[in-house]
Amino acid sequence: MNDDTIRTAAMLAIGDELLSGRTKDKNIGHLADVLQIAGIDLREVRIVADDEVAIIEAVNTLRNRYDYVFTSGGIGPTHDDITADSMSKAFGVDCIHDPAAMTLLSEMYARRGMEFTEARKRMARMPQGARHIDNPVSTAPGFVVENVFVMAGVPQVFVAMLDNVVATLPAGAQVIARSIPCPFGEGDIGTPLGAIQKAHDNTSIGSYPQFKGDRFFTEIVVRGRDVAAIDAAEADIKAMIETLSRSSEGVGERV
Amino acid sequence: MNDDTIRTAAMLAIGDELLSGRTKDKNIGHLADVLQIAGIDLREVRIVADDEVAIIEAVNTLRNRYDYVFTSGGIGPTHDDITADSMSKAFGVDCIHDPAAMTLLSEMYARRGMEFTEARKRMARMPQGARHIDNPVSTAPGFVVENVFVMAGVPQVFVAMLDNVVATLPAGAQVIARSIPCPFGEGDIGTPLGAIQKAHDNTSIGSYPQFKGDRFFTEIVVRGRDVAAIDAAEADIKAMIETLSRSSEGVGERV
Repeated sequence: MNDDTIRTAAMLAIGDELLSGRTKDKNIGHLADVLQIAGIDLREVRIVADDEVAIIEAVNTLRNRYDYVFTSGGIGPTHDDITADSMSKAFGVDCIHDPAAMTLLSEMYARRGMEFTEARKRMARMPQGARHIDNPVSTAPGFVVENVFVMAGVPQVFVAMLDNVVATLPAGAQVIARSIPCPFGEGDIGTPLGAIQKAHDNTSIGSYPQFKGDRFFTEIVVRGRDVAAIDAAEADIKAMIETLSRSSEGVGERV
Repeated sequence: MNDDTIRTAAMLAIGDELLSGRTKDKNIGHLADVLQIAGIDLREVRIVADDEVAIIEAVNTLRNRYDYVFTSGGIGPTHDDITADSMSKAFGVDCIHDPAAMTLLSEMYARRGMEFTEARKRMARMPQGARHIDNPVSTAPGFVVENVFVMAGVPQVFVAMLDNVVATLPAGAQVIARSIPCPFGEGDIGTPLGAIQKAHDNTSIGSYPQFKGDRFFTEIVVRGRDVAAIDAAEADIKAMIETLSRSSEGVGERV
């Protein structure tokens, strides 16, 4: 399925370690890349601690506001993994040892001759009625409740689970992003670029300063879902750069 | 000043490019590191688009909830830099071309023989009454309104501005984090570690799986503000590892 509906999404990254600086998040940027390709608009990201009140408040706000919510973290076997309990409370359902997940995990540990400890059984817990997200890396599944996709925080596992999730989502009209390198700083292009944005309001034009040596250059990015509109905006931007180049004292904006 | 008050903080990272995947944020992790050292608890992070409604809602929520809010992004010279306007609306004050910032910037451009364009003048805009945050990299200041510190998104500038900000904040009691490498996976340690956390409730004990080859190891981190409490928890964790080592089938938890 591929249609023109614009679908929106949020991410909720869960974990004390992201807020203490101990772990530098890698999942947000990966999700952003994957959703861009899938044509789903990532509109907001939140990072919260392993704190039930914070998790419940964030997920309830985000799931009512966006089409999809993707979460990372807090579904392991230890005491600070409270995402399954928090999601159950957010949806007002019991948090259970899911029978199918218990079977998956008990068989996996039996094959390996390892004890299926109480801690390991925690990884089978999820809100009653949740569907699984397969985990090809380490077996313990993520889960889906309504529009919320609950995945692991370990990047290797998050990536694998997200691949499984994205394959199930209807693809939206893809956002095209066209990048135009610009040899001027934002101070030179700000006013004419603002006028170009106004004239092409079915595109979104961003400019990103790049600091190289002692000068700022700019990357201009035109985003949209309509190729003709993007072509038209790009043509105006290139004309602007051409005009500036003729009148310029030189390229790059010194800091 | 250094006292035992626990001060809390949030970060608000602003920018379409963070949500499209085009830019991978580096400022969140840096802020987390700096606040950890300063003894300030980072409790929440949000990333929102260059969207006035989203920025205003987020900053108003966060500034009422935490002692400090640190923002990044959206204070450059182009049309999509709307942070100064959004902050002014959030605080219900006019967004003005700050006279001192106009002087700083006009002198800088005059020294360099560059035109002080309308776009460049945008970088002097801030909520009326805001204090400056010095920008040693590229002159255009960030600003402070009440408990909200508005900084640039370009990492080199964010880092420099944050250094200036942190020097002005009262240092809290520093959080000490002690890391204990553990040769077992979370499935082995989950239950005993949960009991240790319960017995040491003036510390926060986290466990972080590390995936190496085909096995999970764990890093256990004890955090707190009281050295004696951390020592006591650490001793129990080391005893747990010792006990597990004697009874174990081998180290590392296979995936």
